Amino acid sequence: MNRDHTCGQLRKEDVNKRVRLAGWVAKRRNLGSIVFIDLRDRYGITQITFDEAHSDEVKDIRNEYVIEVEGIVKLKENPNTKLATGEIEVLADKCTVLSESKTTPLIIADETDALEDVRLKYRYLDIRRNPIKEKLLLRDKVTTIVRNTLHAKDFVEVETPILCKSTPEGARDYLVPSRLYNGRFYALPQSPQIYKQLLMIGGMDRYFQIARCFRDEDLRADRQPEFTQIDIEMSFADEDDIQGVVEEVMRNIFKEVKNIDNLEFKKIKYVDAMDDYGSDKPDLRFENKLVDIGDIFKDTEFKIFKDVLDNNGVIKGVSFNHLFSRKDIDKLTEFVKIYKAKALAYLKLENGTLSGSLNNALSDSEKEALRQRFDLKDGDTLFIVGDQKKIAQSALGALRSKLGNELGLINKDEYAFAWITDFPMYEYSEEEGRYVAAHHPFTSPKLEDLDKMLTDKANCYSRAYDLVLNGYELLSGSVRIHNQQLQAKVFEALEITPEKAKERFGFFLEAFEYGAPPHCGVGIGLERLIMILSDTDNIKDVVAFPKTASAMDLMAQAPSLVDQDQLDFLGLEIKKKD
Amino acid sequence: MNRDHTCGQLRKEDVNKRVRLAGWVAKRRNLGSIVFIDLRDRYGITQITFDEAHSDEVKDIRNEYVIEVEGIVKLKENPNTKLATGEIEVLADKCTVLSESKTTPLIIADETDALEDVRLKYRYLDIRRNPIKEKLLLRDKVTTIVRNTLHAKDFVEVETPILCKSTPEGARDYLVPSRLYNGRFYALPQSPQIYKQLLMIGGMDRYFQIARCFRDEDLRADRQPEFTQIDIEMSFADEDDIQGVVEEVMRNIFKEVKNIDNLEFKKIKYVDAMDDYGSDKPDLRFENKLVDIGDIFKDTEFKIFKDVLDNNGVIKGVSFNHLFSRKDIDKLTEFVKIYKAKALAYLKLENGTLSGSLNNALSDSEKEALRQRFDLKDGDTLFIVGDQKKIAQSALGALRSKLGNELGLINKDEYAFAWITDFPMYEYSEEEGRYVAAHHPFTSPKLEDLDKMLTDKANCYSRAYDLVLNGYELLSGSVRIHNQQLQAKVFEALEITPEKAKERFGFFLEAFEYGAPPHCGVGIGLERLIMILSDTDNIKDVVAFPKTASAMDLMAQAPSLVDQDQLDFLGLEIKKKD
Repeated sequence: MNRDHTCGQLRKEDVNKRVRLAGWVAKRRNLGSIVFIDLRDRYGITQITFDEAHSDEVKDIRNEYVIEVEGIVKLKENPNTKLATGEIEVLADKCTVLSESKTTPLIIADETDALEDVRLKYRYLDIRRNPIKEKLLLRDKVTTIVRNTLHAKDFVEVETPILCKSTPEGARDYLVPSRLYNGRFYALPQSPQIYKQLLMIGGMDRYFQIARCFRDEDLRADRQPEFTQIDIEMSFADEDDIQGVVEEVMRNIFKEVKNIDNLEFKKIKYVDAMDDYGSDKPDLRFENKLVDIGDIFKDTEFKIFKDVLDNNGVIKGVSFNHLFSRKDIDKLTEFVKIYKAKALAYLKLENGTLSGSLNNALSDSEKEALRQRFDLKDGDTLFIVGDQKKIAQSALGALRSKLGNELGLINKDEYAFAWITDFPMYEYSEEEGRYVAAHHPFTSPKLEDLDKMLTDKANCYSRAYDLVLNGYELLSGSVRIHNQQLQAKVFEALEITPEKAKERFGFFLEAFEYGAPPHCGVGIGLERLIMILSDTDNIKDVVAFPKTASAMDLMAQAPSLVDQDQLDFLGLEIKKKD
Repeated sequence: MNRDHTCGQLRKEDVNKRVRLAGWVAKRRNLGSIVFIDLRDRYGITQITFDEAHSDEVKDIRNEYVIEVEGIVKLKENPNTKLATGEIEVLADKCTVLSESKTTPLIIADETDALEDVRLKYRYLDIRRNPIKEKLLLRDKVTTIVRNTLHAKDFVEVETPILCKSTPEGARDYLVPSRLYNGRFYALPQSPQIYKQLLMIGGMDRYFQIARCFRDEDLRADRQPEFTQIDIEMSFADEDDIQGVVEEVMRNIFKEVKNIDNLEFKKIKYVDAMDDYGSDKPDLRFENKLVDIGDIFKDTEFKIFKDVLDNNGVIKGVSFNHLFSRKDIDKLTEFVKIYKAKALAYLKLENGTLSGSLNNALSDSEKEALRQRFDLKDGDTLFIVGDQKKIAQSALGALRSKLGNELGLINKDEYAFAWITDFPMYEYSEEEGRYVAAHHPFTSPKLEDLDKMLTDKANCYSRAYDLVLNGYELLSGSVRIHNQQLQAKVFEALEITPEKAKERFGFFLEAFEYGAPPHCGVGIGLERLIMILSDTDNIKDVVAFPKTASAMDLMAQAPSLVDQDQLDFLGLEIKKKD
């Protein structure tokens, strides 16, 4: 060992000990003939002092050199309260350079103005920075808590394959050409879904895996081509059981990481979430619910609202305790258009007087009804959208979310969890001209909807559930179908013929013929969880070696060209794409 | 939950409780109008008894049906001592079929005569069998011990990428075509070697990962295309430090899994291992060392041995306390030919009299010298090979290993560890006509060999080390080069030009210019470790969903053909291979 203590370890009690430390030079200052060096390692920073007798030994040492020093621990006259080791310094009498460093292309400090491309290219330097290092340590801490919690509940971690079979459902697969079977391919798994269900059929009872997953999608800012899922599945269990397990996992994480021990988990049905918040991942840290006000206008003479109601639309409103300027309102009107809302009507109550786009259009009794319904007070603004239900919901939901953030209605230290349940079983795909599975085709329908499965698809609900946290979807999961007859019925509803089902899911369906237990599970997005816990919006911050939005590893320069004989071995030819 | 107890849980103390169990029907027996069902889950088997009043409910239930039963725990008149639950039975009064089963293509029992192909195709049924299930549970247990041990020593688990850059060194890479960059490829990692060294340069100090690795090789029986490595790397540390960490990991594993707490770790230099055991992974559970006997024959008149010595060959022997038949000797002679030995000479001592192929060829004093050197006793056979050193070593080493097994010299309950150290730095590649790296080009040479690096490559040794256990290589590792000048010198010795080095390892080498700490590490083969712990030679037994020797997943039927548009997206064309 080049050290007998780390750079984060020494305290007042160690004074007069002779110690050996090793680390990186974070900073050097000369004070006359004395040299001070801040020596850094993963554990902290310790000040090393070289007096006249030894300062010559360090005259060539620069930032990010790796050195080993020996010396005596001394009490500091002026403690540095910012450092855990700030009460002491090491008076060095020996210094060995272990490794030199050129000037780094980014400064190793908590704050950096380096461009993201530079940080990614020199990721090993970026990792030396506390904000990145801490997130990687947090990631390890969280997965450890997950493992401990699940192991204590008899879950077994099982590694499922990375070289899998391609299935044409869902997102695009990453393919891996086979060398031994010319023209055939493995696929990297989008999730271990099929394997974990097979483990349940195999009697493993309770499975989990911190599992690597892959999707060859055009990446959004918060996506990576490879990502990690806390994947859980359990047998002989239902929604309450698996949700209880997840809640315990979350309680333990938030207790250990945030010292919060009073987490609450609401349950909200999908239709209620859409009605009240215009979103299936509502941020529950503030109220400002959407309210249906169609009843107020059932006999209205205001033509626009009348037309909406006559066309089976809805009228919904949401109020905020803020007076918006004309300019604000114009911007918000543009904003709701993103969600296809045709207009954003509003009323303001200022000094006891109503104003706004609706003020002249509505009758006094309508306005009075609105004042009462929303309990409008001085300084409030009420926004109203009349439109098709989905549009009114999503437009006002997005508006609610935006204003909740901008008006500071959110307590950043609050973690508001909710289970969203009873999702629609099917959703109509305009593209395919048929109903498709809203979750995946192995999701169980609600048992009370069984007789509507083929006749009233729009009103069938499933046993799928999401856990949402502060406006993010943290996981989704479902109770699975374990019964072949029910599975056949769902395929029928999805217009998947038995032949097609067999072709696509053959071996998986066959497994259900040999005794499948009732089972259910979830997949928790690990990166998302770490992002929330470490309060960052940038997924790259929580991945050790991330890729860019175009799936490029800027450090290793992958993907890269390969030798022709590698292609020949695989029997592949590159074809120019259009 | 379909149960309030598992099938492995109920004991005498639970008698008279009303319980609900769920599981698979492992066996049913009818005794008159009474039906006994052995109900199985992951945790065990419980006998369920249906008396006259209820046996009708289970008349259609067959093996591997999944059922839920309710009833009262009763004391068994004749306890079944083979079962943990054998003191009780559950007198059932309610039974629900959760899932039916066809007759399974393999019997769910500890012993099976099913063909391996059938077991792999129906892997989810194979997993229901105790021997497979137990190995998967063991695997989880071992990785948990590894994680706990390493976490306690400040190691951090970091996930490194699966979508990496292809490097033309070493085994063949699995490639992943990029959709966004036509003609470019990712490669699946053969190990996280480069990333973990970058984490050291990034200051992570102590890293580990239970890491998935991939090699597109023609598979031997004990290989899988994807496998798992316990990957460890530490900074500011040397051989003793990392070996100490690994020893603690092994002690904890063998304590918890085997209840063994007196593991010893020998250290043997590579040259000594080759001299004494003819192998760099010697089985140390028995003696029978190889002995060099060239000195006995330095003035011999036996022409064959004389020629060997005149041609710089060696003469080595190994003795066993067993008298081999003529037929045995013929077979062993064929066996050593595999290792290129031209002949296998021998002497037997039976009733005080020597016999064997060498008896007439050698002088009396030579024979007496051999008797003394090997302390030959009645019933001993001495085998001698005179040949080039490498051939004599490997032929007799293989013979020693074979006979150690066949003669029952091995205590199956013993676990004999040894560190093999001081490996050659280079090995001469006939194929390439140059010295290549024996480990990998980032391995540090022994410091005392620095001045021989370019002039005497055959006698340069490295700071690489293997841990061997009972004749298997459990891990290999090395102290890495952290100094650019030394790395340049090693490349020079390997005849890799600076330009070529930059082209192959560019970004990695650049990282060493920004302050690399001294570091070292290991990669432990997890499957091998679990195989040894569970006493199986079949790697497929310790993998949840294994592939065949031709890298085929017989269950999922991967690799498979993919849709043309998937290929079009990737800009790939299949070319017939010769």
